[in-house]
Amino acid sequence: MSESSNHPSARPIPVLEVFGPTIQGEGMAIGRKTMFVRTAGCDYRCSWCDSKFTWDGSAKDEIRMLSADEIVTELFSIGGDTFDHVTISGGNPLLLPQIALLTQRLHEKNIRIAVETQGSRWQDWLVRIDEVTLSPKPPSSGMETDFEALDDIVSRLREASGRRDLCIKIVIFDEDDLTYARGVHKRYPDIPFILQTGNPQVSHESDDHVASLLNRYEWLIGRLSEFADLKDARALPQLHTLVWGNKRGV
Amino acid sequence: MSESSNHPSARPIPVLEVFGPTIQGEGMAIGRKTMFVRTAGCDYRCSWCDSKFTWDGSAKDEIRMLSADEIVTELFSIGGDTFDHVTISGGNPLLLPQIALLTQRLHEKNIRIAVETQGSRWQDWLVRIDEVTLSPKPPSSGMETDFEALDDIVSRLREASGRRDLCIKIVIFDEDDLTYARGVHKRYPDIPFILQTGNPQVSHESDDHVASLLNRYEWLIGRLSEFADLKDARALPQLHTLVWGNKRGV
Ligand code: SF4
Ligand code: SF4
Repeated sequence: MSESSNHPSARPIPVLEVFGPTIQGEGMAIGRKTMFVRTAGCDYRCSWCDSKFTWDGSAKDEIRMLSADEIVTELFSIGGDTFDHVTISGGNPLLLPQIALLTQRLHEKNIRIAVETQGSRWQDWLVRIDEVTLSPKPPSSGMETDFEALDDIVSRLREASGRRDLCIKIVIFDEDDLTYARGVHKRYPDIPFILQTGNPQVSHESDDHVASLLNRYEWLIGRLSEFADLKDARALPQLHTLVWGNKRGV
Repeated sequence: MSESSNHPSARPIPVLEVFGPTIQGEGMAIGRKTMFVRTAGCDYRCSWCDSKFTWDGSAKDEIRMLSADEIVTELFSIGGDTFDHVTISGGNPLLLPQIALLTQRLHEKNIRIAVETQGSRWQDWLVRIDEVTLSPKPPSSGMETDFEALDDIVSRLREASGRRDLCIKIVIFDEDDLTYARGVHKRYPDIPFILQTGNPQVSHESDDHVASLLNRYEWLIGRLSEFADLKDARALPQLHTLVWGNKRGV
């Protein structure tokens, strides 16, 4: 090994799930065939987090410390030759400098890479990601956005050479979230902007889950329609939640 | 008027619906806020057409012959200053040379324009459309694709100067449709490719419509997952059908 194992980029990655191929159920690549790698750990504690098991300790026995090469091997052993896209999801993958090596290994195999983060932390490897989704958290999450950190991330990505897709995606539960979202869109007007239906049932599953999600989505479409400052926005549900509810690994 | 009213581009446009703002419920701009203009008339007769009223005579009393300026006025009277995107839908808008003038008027107002067509006919104005969706019809439609016409459209769009988004979208009901779709993707491998869940209930509405659409979508995701020749494809449902069923004007 040319890299010392003490070097951050050679550290193993805490992984909770490797699965697919399935579709990306949300955001700018909605519907796109992809594999998922879900990392453990988050610096946030969103009230409605749909991946609490990545940070609340409930799945800590499932966390595997994997090298970049082990992750790549597992992806190809599950997905064979049927995929060309990997989504690195969390938790917040931006806590992990060692993802640099994983992105390098995936690009060597001509795999396109998507990452989603709330935009609270920077890592240099983010400029090498093909599809970056910044998903700052609205008031209903109970979190407070560090706009200095977000500004910094946005300007670093804007200045970085290379081609990448960038979007901002905000989960909307209520009017306060909408007000917050409009402010974010105004702050970064040139970045493609997506409003996403909130999923209020992340820990249980009622019979009318789909109907309630579609009602929320209809409300969101109605609100989107009305605002002159949201001309070029998109409103999207989470397709995987409509199809599979809160089931993991699909 | 500088153009003679006998000139094709000055002819009025047969319009069935002008509505919005709402979301584009399908395809590459899924979720995007848009206004719709639905034109009358189609050269196809797809078995599962969800817009049969555009060509089967059932809505012929609703057809209005509108000039480009009248359509633009109506769009702004309904949508005010809340939109910057118009989808011209049918029927097959490519039957109508006079849409040239409408695209010109909309672009003068900085409106982005999307058009969907099965790809059976060409009009020169198609090169000026910002988002072109070619939607050739699979075997379940009962129609036969004229691949010479489709090849011609694709190569004209490829050669045309200017920036536009182009995608191919194919409705999938069954395995034969999938086989057809894979052939189309192989024929035009560089064009972004979308598989769309078929809606078998276009004229009535059963209680389990949403569940049945989501089951079909889950099946489609499963099939998409398996094919190595569909690495970079997307599978998407029609969001408006999930939210509103077959209701018109939403
Ligand atoms: S940032 Fe994401 S992973 Fe972290 S707590 Fe919030 S929703 Fe959960
Ligand atoms: S091409 Fe479209 S509008 Fe025409 S019959 Fe087929 S589905 Fe209907």
